[in-house]
Amino acid sequence: MSKTSLLKWLKEGHLTIPAELLTQYKDMNLNEQELVLLLQVISFNENGNEFPTPFELSSRMTISVSDCTDILRKLIQKGFIEIKEGHTGDGILHEIYNIEPLWEKLIEHFLLRNKQEAVLVNQKNET
Amino acid sequence: MSKTSLLKWLKEGHLTIPAELLTQYKDMNLNEQELVLLLQVISFNENGNEFPTPFELSSRMTISVSDCTDILRKLIQKGFIEIKEGHTGDGILHEIYNIEPLWEKLIEHFLLRNKQEAVLVNQKNET
Amino acid sequence: MSKTSLLKWLKEGHLTIPAELLTQYKDMNLNEQELVLLLQVISFNENGNEFPTPFELSSRMTISVSDCTDILRKLIQKGFIEIKEGHTGDGILHEIYNIEPLWEKLIEHFLLRNKQEAVLVNQKNET
Amino acid sequence: MSKTSLLKWLKEGHLTIPAELLTQYKDMNLNEQELVLLLQVISFNENGNEFPTPFELSSRMTISVSDCTDILRKLIQKGFIEIKEGHTGDGILHEIYNIEPLWEKLIEHFLLRNKQEAVLVNQKNET
Repeated sequence: MSKTSLLKWLKEGHLTIPAELLTQYKDMNLNEQELVLLLQVISFNENGNEFPTPFELSSRMTISVSDCTDILRKLIQKGFIEIKEGHTGDGILHEIYNIEPLWEKLIEHFLLRNKQEAVLVNQKNET
Repeated sequence: MSKTSLLKWLKEGHLTIPAELLTQYKDMNLNEQELVLLLQVISFNENGNEFPTPFELSSRMTISVSDCTDILRKLIQKGFIEIKEGHTGDGILHEIYNIEPLWEKLIEHFLLRNKQEAVLVNQKNET
Repeated sequence: MSKTSLLKWLKEGHLTIPAELLTQYKDMNLNEQELVLLLQVISFNENGNEFPTPFELSSRMTISVSDCTDILRKLIQKGFIEIKEGHTGDGILHEIYNIEPLWEKLIEHFLLRNKQEAVLVNQKNET
Repeated sequence: MSKTSLLKWLKEGHLTIPAELLTQYKDMNLNEQELVLLLQVISFNENGNEFPTPFELSSRMTISVSDCTDILRKLIQKGFIEIKEGHTGDGILHEIYNIEPLWEKLIEHFLLRNKQEAVLVNQKNET
């Protein structure tokens, strides 16, 4: 029993996210529901489901299917995710969520933040 | 510039969480704000701050300081975190958040879920 | 430049391994070269290459192609990996390395170790 | 039993390393034993032991205590780790291994590699 449980646990795996995302999502104009929905999309993605439905997302969250649809739309409008065409091994086209825009925004925010901090340090040193 | 930025990014590090937490928090009676607040406590903890204040938590979240206080109280009441006494190297006592109860609950939920799934499989096989 | 580099770094990703593997591989009868080769197989796997050739493995390691072949054979004999049939989306069969035996062995070792430690603690308490 | 084992497993935690380290250590002039010893130093570090002895390192590896001492010396000479002074909460000075030089070297290598690849791509496009 122990062995089976542990093996199952190990195979469920982990989600590893940049610390920066957790500390900066607020400044990037995301709220907790949007952040968790993005984490769900990433997690589905890592398990081979590149286009989870609002129903699948909602089943793991405390928000309704229609709220999931709304949040997805908002995240696309704000430029955190985009829908693009992917294709499976057998050449059939299908849609996938691309989360690269999220990483680009996170990095832009990180670089801007570093720059602003450097300016502040310089100002301090000059006075 | 690139090197400094990359080094800083690398040192900010990552947060690694069990996939089970992300897929089951809803069934464990947690909502998105409570989940993210728990992740913040874990993240502060890994960076050496074992007792982040509601003010520190709120500064990274879209909820107010008093709402953070309320959520912390609720998480303690529901048995996800507890406050216990810790001590620094110099022997001074101070309070820390213990998140082991969260892991215990997560594992209990995981084992219960496996058991129920096994029962369902058995029922199917019998009919 | 910074942004492109950081994005590239982020996309290269991470390898997350159970601490137990790093602390116990020696007791599991593995040496450093075998451990690193297993990590390479896991890493290739996570990037979609489920059957890296000895040549691909050797290109990242300080050992020759024929030594990689030998180590792979030994790992299969010792029961850490196995070759099984997989299939791509288009239904074509191909071979893949299955590393589940490694996780099973790691868990068996972990459970055995816990049991032995519990026995030792009991013996101490009885005397 | 299951619960205790799972909780113990969860608390042992994980080691998360940049994929770049695994794919490039050879080009950075490290071999498998040196790589694994560095991973051990990082792992001890994350568990609060900032200056593991050659004896402690050797106990987890297939190499002798004196070989661990030699490898540590070589890693310091080659500039992958350095010994610096740290201090505990109670103000007592003690030595710690600083692995920041490893991350700096890894990033330098990563940036150089990107640059060389960009040059190659340009040359191809020009012809």
